[in-house]
Amino acid sequence: MPETMPADSVGLVSPTILNIDSPLVLDCGRTLPSYDLIYETYGVLNNAASNAVLICHALSGDHHAAGFHNADDKKPGWWDSAIGPGKAIDTNKFFVVCLNNLGGCKGSTGPTSINPETGKHYGPDFPILTVADWVRSQAVLADHLNIQQWAAVVGGSLGAMQAMQWAIGLPERLRHVLIIAAAPKLSAQNIAFNEVARTAIKSDPNFHDGYYAEHNTLPRQGLGLARMLGHITYLSDEAMGEKFGRELRNGTINYGYDVEFQIESYLQYQSSSFVERFDANTYLLMTKALDYFDPAKAFNDDLAATMANIQARSLVISFTSDWRFSPARSQEIVDALLSAGKNVTYAEIEAHQGHDAFLMPIPRYMEIVQTYMQQIANECSS
Amino acid sequence: MPETMPADSVGLVSPTILNIDSPLVLDCGRTLPSYDLIYETYGVLNNAASNAVLICHALSGDHHAAGFHNADDKKPGWWDSAIGPGKAIDTNKFFVVCLNNLGGCKGSTGPTSINPETGKHYGPDFPILTVADWVRSQAVLADHLNIQQWAAVVGGSLGAMQAMQWAIGLPERLRHVLIIAAAPKLSAQNIAFNEVARTAIKSDPNFHDGYYAEHNTLPRQGLGLARMLGHITYLSDEAMGEKFGRELRNGTINYGYDVEFQIESYLQYQSSSFVERFDANTYLLMTKALDYFDPAKAFNDDLAATMANIQARSLVISFTSDWRFSPARSQEIVDALLSAGKNVTYAEIEAHQGHDAFLMPIPRYMEIVQTYMQQIANECSS
Repeated sequence: MPETMPADSVGLVSPTILNIDSPLVLDCGRTLPSYDLIYETYGVLNNAASNAVLICHALSGDHHAAGFHNADDKKPGWWDSAIGPGKAIDTNKFFVVCLNNLGGCKGSTGPTSINPETGKHYGPDFPILTVADWVRSQAVLADHLNIQQWAAVVGGSLGAMQAMQWAIGLPERLRHVLIIAAAPKLSAQNIAFNEVARTAIKSDPNFHDGYYAEHNTLPRQGLGLARMLGHITYLSDEAMGEKFGRELRNGTINYGYDVEFQIESYLQYQSSSFVERFDANTYLLMTKALDYFDPAKAFNDDLAATMANIQARSLVISFTSDWRFSPARSQEIVDALLSAGKNVTYAEIEAHQGHDAFLMPIPRYMEIVQTYMQQIANECSS
Repeated sequence: MPETMPADSVGLVSPTILNIDSPLVLDCGRTLPSYDLIYETYGVLNNAASNAVLICHALSGDHHAAGFHNADDKKPGWWDSAIGPGKAIDTNKFFVVCLNNLGGCKGSTGPTSINPETGKHYGPDFPILTVADWVRSQAVLADHLNIQQWAAVVGGSLGAMQAMQWAIGLPERLRHVLIIAAAPKLSAQNIAFNEVARTAIKSDPNFHDGYYAEHNTLPRQGLGLARMLGHITYLSDEAMGEKFGRELRNGTINYGYDVEFQIESYLQYQSSSFVERFDANTYLLMTKALDYFDPAKAFNDDLAATMANIQARSLVISFTSDWRFSPARSQEIVDALLSAGKNVTYAEIEAHQGHDAFLMPIPRYMEIVQTYMQQIANECSS
């Protein structure tokens, strides 16, 4: 935490754990009899409960989107640049909710939780969830918070898939949807990268078919490899080039197999810090949820038909150098929304940061979100 | 082998092993006292020894570029589509030479060879080679074959780097250079992918710091992962989408972590067949040679100055969907050649196959190579 809390920070925040005792029927056919959802809120819910905004997180995100947990925190929440008083998602105007998704590893029930039926960690026995499952569990949280209709559901990447699924699956429960750095479904290449990541994790001898907790170990190498690879796909070639180029760590080539280039050093560091804070079974589960997401499948691959019941107005945002979910993928969403006769605003942001741009305070991006959110705020108060 | 040998095949071919007893001083400072080079030739060297063409192979290639080794061979050499009587590189006109590079695992001295000093496999003690080292060893082969000057040196990908290095380092020894699907050096992203591949291999518990042969094992998982990842970068998103899309292997999602999508099945198959025919230490070495290649480094990053002494005329070819070495990377080479006042022809081929396009018989690509090679043939005979 900075010595003086910035005026535009939500400040010190604490998560809340909601225990839900009613069963959740999942797409895979299994049922979770009860589960915890951990969430944070920023700002105040108005009397009409009309100013609530749901933030959906991406693969490695969690419920801690803004502010600081304690004075020792070095970093604020993962989207602190966008959420706070006066920021693009203005907590003076909105009641912002962010939860750790079910299957996560940051406090909501997931593979690292104890399975009440066995008294052991769920581990690999935790059911594989879908984006639609997440949306159903998020709706339970909304009910608990007495939010009948979100002013907006907002997400980037895998979070954007949840936002889309809200608009498609529960159309009357949101007025706006912000779909950022998204795709309507993964391409074969996207799935291929996920499969390499999963293979890396599963082939780590410390993985023990997912029961690593019972062996008091972690599949660090496999999860680290998955993260290294993921990281490459989150950045653009250009951004990596600008940041690292071909710079050598020790200034000289040593003709050995240890780390030589700065980019290698960076990836190894990113991966080793990630494995200490993330669960491998959760990582597997998240990649599967990504692979499975394909809402148009039930509509004969007709994305416009899939969008037919959407009531929310949409803001779709893409980033020029994002090669994981390129602007063309966002345009598929925009085209479908337009074909379905929906109200949609689209912005392609010039950005060199690749897919990760959706997490960055890029001025034009933040201005567009702020302007759009301001319109929503005006609706809430009028 | 087909039942009837096609008229445009070089037919049954056999490799030759050349043992070189004079030492080769390497860029890393070490010296190979003696070494073997395995090579194949197709066509006949003319009396003036003016019609010789050197084919340089890429990461996983070898000396077997065309024809069949025996009647049971299911597949011809790796560039059979381009090399043969009447083909783009016409063996009725040219004497075509292709060798397995030093450090390889198909017959030239490399990590799987016995180190005469220890009586054991070189394994990880085999020196890391550079592209310039390869060119020096290829020049020794040229001397042995009494080829003072190649009519052309031809290569794609890592092979193109060797072709470029010939033109830069031994300018008087070639009249033409064909630089296909190349880059003048790897980008940070390229290096990053290589580092993930190396980390996968090195962290396989069967790798044993590279001494897996002494443990009677192979780092199959690690090398397989490296290959899976490499394969994704060789194909375009579009090509993968056309070939596999989101097709499911068994037609239905099973909510488990086994292979579900066809693309996953394909990658797993590619990887498991690769690990039986390729050496992990060679793979590491090849990726390092790629990372290190940066001829302009000695010229203050001035690629045009690097090209100043080139005497060969150049044909540079790129492929639209190649995102490993995109057309922009080839254009860097073309721009430098033009700045240096060199004679260069450039063609960007419309192709959806990604980086692998350089191995495919794409009509416009083959026509351009054929036309260019025909001009060279005319020079040889005039």
